[in-house]
Amino acid sequence: MLENKDQSKTSLSQLGEFGLINHITKNFSIQQQSTIKAIGDDAAVLDFKSKKTVVSTDLLVEGVHFDLSYMPLKHLGYKAVVVNVSDICAMNATPTQVTVSIAVSNRFPLEAIEELYEGIRLACDFYKVDLIGGDTTSSTTGLLISVTALGEATEEEITYRSGAQENDLLVVTGDIGSAYMGLQVLEREKQVFLVNPQNQPNLEDYSYIIERQLKPEARNDIKELLQKLDVKPTSMIDISDGISSEIMHICKASNVGCNLYEDKLPLDPQLINVCEEFNLDSTTIAINGGEDYELLFTVSMNDFEKIKGNPHLSIIGHITAEKEGIHLITRENTKLPLKARGWNALNEEE
Amino acid sequence: MLENKDQSKTSLSQLGEFGLINHITKNFSIQQQSTIKAIGDDAAVLDFKSKKTVVSTDLLVEGVHFDLSYMPLKHLGYKAVVVNVSDICAMNATPTQVTVSIAVSNRFPLEAIEELYEGIRLACDFYKVDLIGGDTTSSTTGLLISVTALGEATEEEITYRSGAQENDLLVVTGDIGSAYMGLQVLEREKQVFLVNPQNQPNLEDYSYIIERQLKPEARNDIKELLQKLDVKPTSMIDISDGISSEIMHICKASNVGCNLYEDKLPLDPQLINVCEEFNLDSTTIAINGGEDYELLFTVSMNDFEKIKGNPHLSIIGHITAEKEGIHLITRENTKLPLKARGWNALNEEE
Repeated sequence: MLENKDQSKTSLSQLGEFGLINHITKNFSIQQQSTIKAIGDDAAVLDFKSKKTVVSTDLLVEGVHFDLSYMPLKHLGYKAVVVNVSDICAMNATPTQVTVSIAVSNRFPLEAIEELYEGIRLACDFYKVDLIGGDTTSSTTGLLISVTALGEATEEEITYRSGAQENDLLVVTGDIGSAYMGLQVLEREKQVFLVNPQNQPNLEDYSYIIERQLKPEARNDIKELLQKLDVKPTSMIDISDGISSEIMHICKASNVGCNLYEDKLPLDPQLINVCEEFNLDSTTIAINGGEDYELLFTVSMNDFEKIKGNPHLSIIGHITAEKEGIHLITRENTKLPLKARGWNALNEEE
Repeated sequence: MLENKDQSKTSLSQLGEFGLINHITKNFSIQQQSTIKAIGDDAAVLDFKSKKTVVSTDLLVEGVHFDLSYMPLKHLGYKAVVVNVSDICAMNATPTQVTVSIAVSNRFPLEAIEELYEGIRLACDFYKVDLIGGDTTSSTTGLLISVTALGEATEEEITYRSGAQENDLLVVTGDIGSAYMGLQVLEREKQVFLVNPQNQPNLEDYSYIIERQLKPEARNDIKELLQKLDVKPTSMIDISDGISSEIMHICKASNVGCNLYEDKLPLDPQLINVCEEFNLDSTTIAINGGEDYELLFTVSMNDFEKIKGNPHLSIIGHITAEKEGIHLITRENTKLPLKARGWNALNEEE
């Protein structure tokens, strides 16, 4: 589908670099007041006034971070923006702009690049971030996407990984582990397809976890939610590598320990069912599976009443002294040292 | 040399992603007051106070933008920063930070990545820009570098492509065409080497033009120079694709025409000699050869006395009404329509 064998498709070389940039960016609009000049000069010009500027960048490589055999290009474009917007949200900042550069081989026709940018545009619209620059170039093989996201926040709002204090509560948004199991289902179906291309997969029972993998969302609602609750997080990180790895980052940066409670982990019922089907332990998946793009943060114990019972937030542990280490407290009340394996490590073990 | 066949070299997989980032960024220091938090959290935090933020990004792909058989990795790292810093300078802004992401195949040992980052560090030191973020990931083939540069400027300082006015003078810094001919020499020597690896090239006669290709510098001195001369440029762009293409950009964005004078083009004597040796017309090379990273700008005719005779600046033409078009006035006083072929196009013709 993606290969440029169809003579009715438009080859990239027909357009040239400047033509391609003009063509794919013409549907993008500017929504942020801070964007003074977007695409069209040597650089974009932004005005954050008295606010601080927050900057993050990520590189997505075909065959390493995504597989186009089950990742539609529109979803890929959307996800490339989301993972960077998520990093800005993890600073308790508001995402405002992105730059998107792509390296693409000639096997992709113009129509494929249009699909990719349609996903990028949808994400920009949804998160109200402006596309302010980028570069398009050819690659010798495959597709590569480099996104840099910018955001803004006041000095008081910005939340680092390093602010967690002893006795703070550990909180996570949404649910975790689903994006990883969504990937497992997609990879299984790909194997089935390779064996029998006639097989029509019925993915209805997996719709939620597949959507978590293919169309994750960044939690750009949490900054406002916490403001309304009058809660100032003490530390914050987003879950890209897996909650166990992210807890390690907070503890290392804050010089603290942590107790994580197995029975408090927010798991979607579909995730539990699929873990049973795959004969996998759902707790292992929940703490090591990555790409959920939820936010993990700490708040003072004094804020307990303000956040308890909130449907977006789960209190899953508390911060301890550094010397007490980092542990998972199991349902059977056993204390296990937490290991940050990350979802890549998890993959290798299977 | 770059392949990881030497067992004494360190493989990237031994370090892991976080280990690699820590290892290669440990020698970088922070020099800009605007850098509040660099590497180590979900995002960097910057404070440009009342100044505007300027952002530019570029992607360099092995086999498309560089050839490691004659481009040492240290030079490549240096150049990757320079081309982005140059874009910030082309807004008449001051470069302040960069993010650098790389995708790299396992054929590169750690020592090669160290070489690359040593070049990046040298450029950061020289241009006083802080490395504030990035991503390192594996690629299925080759090396790819994505750099985003940030800078700062007051509203009055920022210079767009779109401000050129009729009768303005067209000015270029330094000399042009040398980087392109440097590349031609390097490619010829590569062919010689492929035929006879024993041949030791004598590159002394080409030292300047080769350096212009392998170690270009961004003109971050021009903003200050113009301030001292009390000259405010009306439009500005940097020369990456070739001066003829860049003149087109200024004219299109400013809705003006231009006369460019062949006898005013600043050519280095070594460039003229090498063009003769290659039997190429030096004017064609000077106006179409790219990668010089000099600045091209326009100033009011009233500023003529302030800039004439300045060793860094050459007045090479003047701006006309849009309807008069864009022309090269030859030494024989013939008026030729200027064509923006760019250096890629130039390459294809030969």
